[in-house]
Amino acid sequence: MTNTELTASKVKRASVFAASSSAESRNDALKLAAELIEKRRGEILAENNKDLAFAKEAGLAAPLIKRLALSDDKISALVDGLLGLASLEDPNGKVRFKRELDKDLVLSCVSCPIGVIGVVFEARPEALVQIASLCIKSGNCAILKGGREATLSNRILFEIMTDALIRAGLDCDMLALLESREEITELLACDKYVDLLIPRGSNTFVRYIMDNTNIPVMGHAAGVCHIYVDKDADITSASHIVCDAKTQYPAACNAVETVLVHKDVANRFAEEYNKICGDYPQITVRAVGDAAKLVESVEASEEDFGKEFSDNVFTLAIVDSTENAILHINKYGSGHTDCIITENDEAWALFSRLVDSAGVYRNCSTRFADGFRYGFGAEVGISTSKLHARGPVGLDGLVTYKYLLEGSGQTVCDYASGKKKFTHKDL
Amino acid sequence: MTNTELTASKVKRASVFAASSSAESRNDALKLAAELIEKRRGEILAENNKDLAFAKEAGLAAPLIKRLALSDDKISALVDGLLGLASLEDPNGKVRFKRELDKDLVLSCVSCPIGVIGVVFEARPEALVQIASLCIKSGNCAILKGGREATLSNRILFEIMTDALIRAGLDCDMLALLESREEITELLACDKYVDLLIPRGSNTFVRYIMDNTNIPVMGHAAGVCHIYVDKDADITSASHIVCDAKTQYPAACNAVETVLVHKDVANRFAEEYNKICGDYPQITVRAVGDAAKLVESVEASEEDFGKEFSDNVFTLAIVDSTENAILHINKYGSGHTDCIITENDEAWALFSRLVDSAGVYRNCSTRFADGFRYGFGAEVGISTSKLHARGPVGLDGLVTYKYLLEGSGQTVCDYASGKKKFTHKDL
Repeated sequence: MTNTELTASKVKRASVFAASSSAESRNDALKLAAELIEKRRGEILAENNKDLAFAKEAGLAAPLIKRLALSDDKISALVDGLLGLASLEDPNGKVRFKRELDKDLVLSCVSCPIGVIGVVFEARPEALVQIASLCIKSGNCAILKGGREATLSNRILFEIMTDALIRAGLDCDMLALLESREEITELLACDKYVDLLIPRGSNTFVRYIMDNTNIPVMGHAAGVCHIYVDKDADITSASHIVCDAKTQYPAACNAVETVLVHKDVANRFAEEYNKICGDYPQITVRAVGDAAKLVESVEASEEDFGKEFSDNVFTLAIVDSTENAILHINKYGSGHTDCIITENDEAWALFSRLVDSAGVYRNCSTRFADGFRYGFGAEVGISTSKLHARGPVGLDGLVTYKYLLEGSGQTVCDYASGKKKFTHKDL
Repeated sequence: MTNTELTASKVKRASVFAASSSAESRNDALKLAAELIEKRRGEILAENNKDLAFAKEAGLAAPLIKRLALSDDKISALVDGLLGLASLEDPNGKVRFKRELDKDLVLSCVSCPIGVIGVVFEARPEALVQIASLCIKSGNCAILKGGREATLSNRILFEIMTDALIRAGLDCDMLALLESREEITELLACDKYVDLLIPRGSNTFVRYIMDNTNIPVMGHAAGVCHIYVDKDADITSASHIVCDAKTQYPAACNAVETVLVHKDVANRFAEEYNKICGDYPQITVRAVGDAAKLVESVEASEEDFGKEFSDNVFTLAIVDSTENAILHINKYGSGHTDCIITENDEAWALFSRLVDSAGVYRNCSTRFADGFRYGFGAEVGISTSKLHARGPVGLDGLVTYKYLLEGSGQTVCDYASGKKKFTHKDL
């Protein structure tokens, strides 16, 4: 048994009791965590500063250092987030339906935690608190593995979260922290103990996880989002939406990677785009065919379509119908978020039904695909899988359900023989 | 590209349009299928007779031949099933929630088909019609692979189903039939085209599928169900439930495999069980420790616990508390269906919260775990996975959802800068 397996087995044991813990005690833990973070603010920042010093010494890239850095504001946001989460309704114990199968034989379908969730996340240390608190709120247990560069920050935040669990009368084994890269490999083999893996990181990393474990994985391997500018689009709006969706945070999975323009409005779109793009960070356009003549661009290769640039780059192509835009999106997209710019309700109806993505948008930026913006409070990640949870995953994605059947001695032979009949009456 | 990949890519293409087909046309297809089956009843039985003749010649086991055989009654049941399904509500297009994120920026979460579902099923030819019709009803497409012994029966039933699709104005590529074993292997590699696999068959077969594909798999590899006879049980009822849950259909995944008895009532249970077990088919009990003294039994090995016998055999053990019964079940069970026999509400509360299974029962047979008995109309299978669908899977398990966001030109930068604020108002 590896150390990780031992850890996972402990968390699994804790998960049985976590599932029956009261919502009150779980909310208490969140409030206590908020209190402790507030009280130990100075210590947290000091540990984070040590991580930052190491990172700078090691020559880590500036964006990575930026994500690693905590600040008074970020800590206040964490505290607010914890208190906000504590005030939300318990996602467990909700009766999804209740049905009398026969007299004194009642079936109910009730939401309950998934169990043990393994989360591998990136540099930002606040992710540890956000993910741990979503798991606590939903009655789940979590095995957390953060970025190596955030080791000291993660350690103190983890200590605070487990301290809060204990003070709330909960089992501190509801959370575990892994620190080394080898432990990820060991975690992948823990299918006996871990019910769900949520990897957050590069596409290559997520794909690696998916290919190397029998544990169900929730996440997205790629975010290849499209915007289709329809012939009936408001062209000014279209140009702003395209620039926002690309430049507001180009490394995000919900940034646009490909813009498709209907041939009838291609010139007007180009004119408008050229007029306003100067107001945004500089974008490199990779274009094919006639699209190359529209704006300043470099030639796009076939592989550029379907690529996540994570940079201020998008591909541009002209299409001759909404149908062909849809075919292009379903072929090259990653099922994340795709948008049509149109004033035409019929085009929207077609687009919304035929585009096979977690988010199908009309007349707004693809960057809205986010748990906070959707009003979920927070998210553990975004899923491009079609099963269980799709799109930004909040508390609802962290619960499953069980069927409870309460009888009074019924046996199946009586129904098989026809002696008794099911009533199937919804209650 | 293998032949199966080519087939799968065609079905995938059809799935885009199937998702936007009207509920009316899909219901028409089901009604037309019912009509055609009624009309071609004689032909179907003739083809089935040929399959039966081959099977007898090949010396297939009697239970297999029994499952392979169609009859006038079975065909009438199929027709009724199709008409019943056609009368059910469309599971698609249901708005799960609708929320204003800001003025003229409305998010809705709407149910939609999963896409392409690969189903590998066993000898019973009626399964083809049941599965295909559930997929059609839910707007999904299906790649079907039936048992080799049912080749001719499956062929005519498949022909009827696709004929019904065409007559209803739908794409006949919504369904495809695979006939050879090699095609299963090819199907497992079609992760570009197939969204979900539902294997129905032996545990070894399901486990093989799970271990050899990147496509999500829904199903159960094992059905190891438990009955725990609590100290506050109605002992007569307990004995009948145990005998029913074992003998009513011992090969079913929801048959009981292990009986746990509280030490305080072990003798009374044994007395009652010995009194009534003669009314049921003969059961072999495998017991450990003191349990061996209770009833006529053979010695159970450690491996016997956690085993699916698929026969009139169960293991028997004595436990000293509800807590230990729960620990035993969570350790050795398969998360399928587990039952407590008790008149004590507190014991039930504990058991229902702590047992981590798709079905948690009180005072009734585990054999009730079935889509038809639950009132789902029919089932495509039973899932012991915790994600997406758990327990018997009916129409609801065959749909997913997408988020539709309708805006009026909104960009994220306005919200990031604080110029605009989300309203997050549920509509």
